[in-house]
Amino acid sequence: MPFEFTLEAQDHSARAGQFTTPHGTLRTPVFAPVGTQATVKAASPRDLREVGASLILANTYHLYLRPGDELIRDMGGLHRFMAWDNPILTDSGGFQVFSLAGIRRIDADGVTFVSHIDGSKHRFTPEKSIDIQQNLGADIIMAFDECPIPDDRASVEAALERTHAWATRCKAYQSRPDQALFGIVQGGIFEDLRRESAAFITGLDLPGYAIGGLAVGETKPQMLASLDFTVPLLPEDRPRYLMGVGSPEDLVHGVARGIDIFDCVLPTRIARNGAALTRQGRINLRNAKYSASPEPIEPGCTCYACATFSKAYLRHLIKADEILAHNLLTLHNIHMLQTLMRELREAILNGTFAECAAAFLATYRPVGQPDPLPLPAIFSR
Amino acid sequence: MPFEFTLEAQDHSARAGQFTTPHGTLRTPVFAPVGTQATVKAASPRDLREVGASLILANTYHLYLRPGDELIRDMGGLHRFMAWDNPILTDSGGFQVFSLAGIRRIDADGVTFVSHIDGSKHRFTPEKSIDIQQNLGADIIMAFDECPIPDDRASVEAALERTHAWATRCKAYQSRPDQALFGIVQGGIFEDLRRESAAFITGLDLPGYAIGGLAVGETKPQMLASLDFTVPLLPEDRPRYLMGVGSPEDLVHGVARGIDIFDCVLPTRIARNGAALTRQGRINLRNAKYSASPEPIEPGCTCYACATFSKAYLRHLIKADEILAHNLLTLHNIHMLQTLMRELREAILNGTFAECAAAFLATYRPVGQPDPLPLPAIFSR
Repeated sequence: MPFEFTLEAQDHSARAGQFTTPHGTLRTPVFAPVGTQATVKAASPRDLREVGASLILANTYHLYLRPGDELIRDMGGLHRFMAWDNPILTDSGGFQVFSLAGIRRIDADGVTFVSHIDGSKHRFTPEKSIDIQQNLGADIIMAFDECPIPDDRASVEAALERTHAWATRCKAYQSRPDQALFGIVQGGIFEDLRRESAAFITGLDLPGYAIGGLAVGETKPQMLASLDFTVPLLPEDRPRYLMGVGSPEDLVHGVARGIDIFDCVLPTRIARNGAALTRQGRINLRNAKYSASPEPIEPGCTCYACATFSKAYLRHLIKADEILAHNLLTLHNIHMLQTLMRELREAILNGTFAECAAAFLATYRPVGQPDPLPLPAIFSR
Repeated sequence: MPFEFTLEAQDHSARAGQFTTPHGTLRTPVFAPVGTQATVKAASPRDLREVGASLILANTYHLYLRPGDELIRDMGGLHRFMAWDNPILTDSGGFQVFSLAGIRRIDADGVTFVSHIDGSKHRFTPEKSIDIQQNLGADIIMAFDECPIPDDRASVEAALERTHAWATRCKAYQSRPDQALFGIVQGGIFEDLRRESAAFITGLDLPGYAIGGLAVGETKPQMLASLDFTVPLLPEDRPRYLMGVGSPEDLVHGVARGIDIFDCVLPTRIARNGAALTRQGRINLRNAKYSASPEPIEPGCTCYACATFSKAYLRHLIKADEILAHNLLTLHNIHMLQTLMRELREAILNGTFAECAAAFLATYRPVGQPDPLPLPAIFSR
């Protein structure tokens, strides 16, 4: 079996494991930077390796529209096309269709939509999503799902039925043995619906499971409460993927609750807005107070940006709208999250996760969240 | 003396030399990429070293306006600010003021202008230009000059007088012993004016001389004819710098005529427009014919872009407006020019410049120039 998940250590609900894929073994918990259009914006593959990235995500919807999944297949697949020979995960296209495209019709069979690029009309079905993902050739592929508004019960219920039927069809249709199809548990913030969805999706016996429909509008306490009752519904012997989550504090809270895989545009998107992640929180380098600072973003950080440049220089690049600013902040922000994940993983292996997580949360001030949210009670000793 | 120019070899009028500076020895002929705002656009210092850049140019006008030359001085100077510990050349600000800013008044003493960034009012004099350049701290600094329309004799004559008076003031005012002040010979396309200007400027006994006012609107044959009669007016024992020139064919023609130093935004600017320099000429990677090309930009090229990515992928990045496209094409284009300059230099050292230059010109098709311009007659053997 090409995909094997082994748990190396468990510290209460936090887990450290290894997931083997055709393009290398992922050491979990792992954070995946997002390479929407077959490139993690403003970073080269060698940049990504340097900052410690092991898994990256690419978007099925975007690559289907441009340059086209068949072209990528003809060019040897996505790994070769973008020169990334480590593991790749593709989403199903579902979330992007619902959030970016102009929806024309959702029916039991699929979704008809218009491209956000040129207004052309397209249709995704579960089988089409798998066809595209098989053309792209990622190591981990996702079942086609519908991501509803998480606190609108009627919308969540309707999406649940389709998501389950579509997951069944994806499993039946998927044929490449070198790709692991993950199922997605939906259910919004409703415990009974999460229970129903987890029962159905895990019943498909897939090599991994994702929790979808979070970090899309609900509050942070709602998200953590949803994780508290959803993660235990997933089998221990399969990797668990929390989709679209990636702020430093959310990674800590997700790992604490037993999540193994994360992805998010946050580190790369805020980099392009001039914001950098530090151990104290997010800082905006446009701020005039950095104009003459000879210090790096984070003293002690070993990334190229911090080892080489002052905040004053980075601020100048941002103010002058220079591309190098995007590259350097992107490198730093991914490096920061990769370093955090490595520390959390080592703490789990050493049985010191509670201390490590608490120490991080004690100094890190999330945006708009003056007081840190608590770790699960089991870590309060 | 911190600045020493030694001629290693001469092949007819083409020269190979070494110019020592406080930040290392330049092997000439040398091409300098342009780092207008203290960054070569879309390239990091390590990128630049990797592709073989040794000298870079930064723009006094831009850095004076943003982030300010005094800030850069306070941050340890331009080398430290931008983390480039190899030689740097700053222009005088004159050309940028005349081409970018809104001119309010030119008088015998200097130029009053308004910033292209925020419309604020400023004044450059020869002394102010030197003050700024001394704050920046480049290895090579330029005398403040006026760059006129090259084929408008009245305008060229008026500029000549000011340029000469200002050069004298720059020499008198300049005080840092670790900076080499280069004089600029003006005179447009007029041989008598070039003769008059060269006589005056070389009479100042400066460590290097530039030819200004070319590549700013005259035809290619006019430019080469101007070089033919201007270069011999410059002393053999000082480096000769042709300002603003940097297409591959112009580099070959300039080296053939005895130029040692070049700078140009061309390789970096066209990169950001999706164009790549090859041995056959410039190609535009937006072209649909590259959409499924598995080949690199230039087979055999050892740059990171060519060693790693297909034209199909690069085209996709360009079409998708991805920052990585700018970085990769910038690297390739600078690498191409650095490689060309290294080959020309080696050919001069080996006494095979004519063959090397002719071989390059035989396959390289310049934009809008179907037939290659000839090398100077002395190379026709």
